Amino acid sequence: MTIDAVLSRIDTDLDTAIDRLKDLLRIPSISTDPAYKADCQKAADWLVDDLKALGVDAEARPTPGHPMVVGHVGDGAPHLLFYGHYDVQPVDPLNLWHRDPFDPAIEDTPSGKVLRGRGTSDDKGQLMTFVEACRAWKAVTGDWPCKITFLFEGEEESGSPSLVPFLKENAQELSQPDIALICDTGLFDRDTPAITTMLRGLLGEEVVITGADKDLHSGMFGGAAINPARVLARIIAALHDDQGRVTVSGFYDGVDELPDDIRAQWDALGFDADAFLGSVDLTTPAGERDRTALEMIWSRPTCEVNGMTSGYTGDGFKTVLPSKATAKISF
Amino acid sequence: MTIDAVLSRIDTDLDTAIDRLKDLLRIPSISTDPAYKADCQKAADWLVDDLKALGVDAEARPTPGHPMVVGHVGDGAPHLLFYGHYDVQPVDPLNLWHRDPFDPAIEDTPSGKVLRGRGTSDDKGQLMTFVEACRAWKAVTGDWPCKITFLFEGEEESGSPSLVPFLKENAQELSQPDIALICDTGLFDRDTPAITTMLRGLLGEEVVITGADKDLHSGMFGGAAINPARVLARIIAALHDDQGRVTVSGFYDGVDELPDDIRAQWDALGFDADAFLGSVDLTTPAGERDRTALEMIWSRPTCEVNGMTSGYTGDGFKTVLPSKATAKISF
Repeated sequence: MTIDAVLSRIDTDLDTAIDRLKDLLRIPSISTDPAYKADCQKAADWLVDDLKALGVDAEARPTPGHPMVVGHVGDGAPHLLFYGHYDVQPVDPLNLWHRDPFDPAIEDTPSGKVLRGRGTSDDKGQLMTFVEACRAWKAVTGDWPCKITFLFEGEEESGSPSLVPFLKENAQELSQPDIALICDTGLFDRDTPAITTMLRGLLGEEVVITGADKDLHSGMFGGAAINPARVLARIIAALHDDQGRVTVSGFYDGVDELPDDIRAQWDALGFDADAFLGSVDLTTPAGERDRTALEMIWSRPTCEVNGMTSGYTGDGFKTVLPSKATAKISF
Repeated sequence: MTIDAVLSRIDTDLDTAIDRLKDLLRIPSISTDPAYKADCQKAADWLVDDLKALGVDAEARPTPGHPMVVGHVGDGAPHLLFYGHYDVQPVDPLNLWHRDPFDPAIEDTPSGKVLRGRGTSDDKGQLMTFVEACRAWKAVTGDWPCKITFLFEGEEESGSPSLVPFLKENAQELSQPDIALICDTGLFDRDTPAITTMLRGLLGEEVVITGADKDLHSGMFGGAAINPARVLARIIAALHDDQGRVTVSGFYDGVDELPDDIRAQWDALGFDADAFLGSVDLTTPAGERDRTALEMIWSRPTCEVNGMTSGYTGDGFKTVLPSKATAKISF
């Protein structure tokens, strides 16, 4: 069978495939930081060259931000579109890395061999699985199974500002695939591949509470003047009830209950919530009291504080009554 | 009367008194920053020289931190002890100053002439009012009214770590005055001098809430994993009830109600709470609902958040579920 030959080819080509991935991982394509603009271009060009070497009609298309890599090859149904991103998150704080994040290497870990380096699992690694799958198919069959479109962006880690405009501008070319595969998700575990059919989406809001027009001395004004940090704390505390449910009016409108067949599939996975939390050193379950952990992380919308700050946060103490308090809250 | 002659002398000597104060203000005696250690010594030496010029038996005494300035002069009852401090707060952020904080000058302001420079009102200005009062008395009478002890420290802005040990080691010398005057407070307003008889005191605590052993991805763990920022917000929100009272058990134990005579004095001041809050751009009263603003800032203990931080607080957004949240809370 063709697929067995292709899979076998992937195995025999594994070392060189990893070398190719390492080449891509060495490019510090941090999209959010303007200092790495040329590196983002370099990563896009690297992908264009690699796709061209496969015979794909590929090019890096300019956007107001970092380039889009678009490639087309093959014909016939179905038309597959592969999406991935070649940009990575900032690497600070560097002292928490035990190796140069842009010098990837395979390491032995308690759970087996792991390729370590920034972008390995988000998203250069996944992106290259598509490319390598295509490479193996081409090597074995000398042809393509169907029409394939590649779309790799360089701004996913900084909010994808150019993605929707680019898709609209190129709707005829990019918006008609039969199947779009997004290779920016995860596996259930090392031995259980997953097809992720939905994500929870994200709405990020910054809440800013302003009090006095300057920081005050808490000895002079404390008690009589409003403290924005306290106001913010009350707002955040009121976002959830004591059952862990989000209290924002209408928050659960349109949130479907799990279909029975999906619930049965999830139950069959034997997910160990204690081990899941234990892996990050947590022992006490949180969240909605009447939901399983898998429901909470896979199907239930959440409201989380991603960051908050107010007043003096350095070493020691300052008797300041802050003029401002801010929180980044995501839904 | 002697006092009239002394007050007159203070008026005629005002310009040179201000020049002396400016000299002291030019020394950047920032106690908390080791880079200014020599400047703290310099300020102490300046005071010793000035006191010696008055005939005071003064010296700078070493401590594990910055020196204590101790001076003795005169005899007879009562024995007065003057306390002040020659150190100042850091000046950051410098861009919020419109002049060099260590280049003091008299400026015209909407409310009259003001001497501007770091330490002018905390505490070099007040400290020198004692010294100048003594100087005028000595100039007019050629003598001292009673036994006077000067005690100026250089660590008030960094927690006064040496003060209590120094007082204990020198108890015989320093702990027997009839009256101790602390010149580190304020006036009710420009035209109403005040004698401050009590301050509220300060207890500072840092609260640290720890969750997972690392920052988590809120898309992967949000909902199921505890969020320390939310826990901290609940704790802060619960510190006050909806009447503005602190809910900590026993918090108001031993807090006396205002004596009637003090209340009458305060009522007679005609304090304008709206103007007080309006001066820092606040319009809505806060704090305990059943207390006047003066009670709240002068006699009622408070609980304020001086700073809090958790998660990502930079520009933009990061889908992080923080591993830690901290707050600096003062009582």
